[in-house]
Amino acid sequence: MSQPTACILVIGNEILSGKTQDANIQFLGFELAKLGIRLEEARVVRDVPDAIVKHLNECRAKFTYVFTTGGIGPTHDDITAECVALAFGVELVLDPEAVEILKRGGRPLNDARLKMARVPRGAELVANSVSGAPGFRIDNVFVFAGIPSIARAMFASAVPMLVKGSPILSASVDVYLREGDFAEQLTQIQSANAAVEIGSYPFNRDGRLGATLVVRGTDRALVDRVVEKIVATMAALGGETKVV
Amino acid sequence: MSQPTACILVIGNEILSGKTQDANIQFLGFELAKLGIRLEEARVVRDVPDAIVKHLNECRAKFTYVFTTGGIGPTHDDITAECVALAFGVELVLDPEAVEILKRGGRPLNDARLKMARVPRGAELVANSVSGAPGFRIDNVFVFAGIPSIARAMFASAVPMLVKGSPILSASVDVYLREGDFAEQLTQIQSANAAVEIGSYPFNRDGRLGATLVVRGTDRALVDRVVEKIVATMAALGGETKVV
Repeated sequence: MSQPTACILVIGNEILSGKTQDANIQFLGFELAKLGIRLEEARVVRDVPDAIVKHLNECRAKFTYVFTTGGIGPTHDDITAECVALAFGVELVLDPEAVEILKRGGRPLNDARLKMARVPRGAELVANSVSGAPGFRIDNVFVFAGIPSIARAMFASAVPMLVKGSPILSASVDVYLREGDFAEQLTQIQSANAAVEIGSYPFNRDGRLGATLVVRGTDRALVDRVVEKIVATMAALGGETKVV
Repeated sequence: MSQPTACILVIGNEILSGKTQDANIQFLGFELAKLGIRLEEARVVRDVPDAIVKHLNECRAKFTYVFTTGGIGPTHDDITAECVALAFGVELVLDPEAVEILKRGGRPLNDARLKMARVPRGAELVANSVSGAPGFRIDNVFVFAGIPSIARAMFASAVPMLVKGSPILSASVDVYLREGDFAEQLTQIQSANAAVEIGSYPFNRDGRLGATLVVRGTDRALVDRVVEKIVATMAALGGETKVV
């Protein structure tokens, strides 16, 4: 079975200005791996229609799924829904179910709030258990809010709509050696085991230098064997290890 | 004076797998704004040569500057320098100054460590005051480490190499009203002041709903006037405000 792929399109000036730390890439990357969907790429773009439409069209042609976060509120800088409609060449239409959901919020349904009930024609709503106003899905594109708690709730609603792959498993070993002292041996282990992906991430813990080696793959037995091989190899080099 | 632009290319499977939270986009976005360089875009890509080369060539043609983070260590998954060389169509060459710097580290200069002294022909080193092994610049592309403390040190070394613009100033107002209740008025303020960019970011603080309104621009007097206009408008709507 080939692995489905995904791309995240983070929409919002606040991430690029440094005002806000994005938290959705890490969350979605982690959750998608559990579903066997490989997050291949993420892009962060400004609230500029041309840029959003261009990236969206590139990414939806290239990956199994695209998840956008941000820009679906009621203010002038919330332009994601209209950009998605532009990218698909369809109209933005008022969704009666979304209107009903917004009515339950108990606030006047003025033009600004009704904007949150407008979705590209053909879209399906994605429920928001946190604050009501829904996201939506059109074709292979899922449109979520930027606020992390709401993005998470929308992702939970979207999970049943996704085609899954084999879960991407991971195991980690902390090694108290410097990367330069084991890089050659690690390269050999990676070359001999192309079906897993080995990453090396150096750390400095209270002055003790080392690296976390992460083994990722869909075959649990193989991941375990590679971890054993790493532990044995590092021990032969005189390095303390700890499977984490 | 037209504003220089920038793009960040974050290179590393660990960001997309959810193992690691990126911190470099926020830091660089914030620092670049102070230098008057607008961060237009960020992309996170896997450790895959084709993908890195393609994104690098797209971005260096499109933006004044590209900053890459990640993938410049000694292990097999550190492939940024060779990908930059591929993108520029030049050889990777051993830099004598980088070799001298690595020698000072006091560890054996094996092949893995020497890899960190290989840069694309024509590149200039970018000093690393934290751990020695340097980054580099070639044309409009700056290549930094992924570890945030080292990326920051390299950015500090790179600042004198950058052409600056007018600093992008920002001011924020917290408004204790719901976005849907002031969106129309805020749209009018944005329309009347196209030289600033106004963002609205909703919050829920201990159950009190509101939004932080951020005004950004290069003209301090205009930014201040727009903030005053926002405060007066929100007060007229019955909303408590706080300039932050």
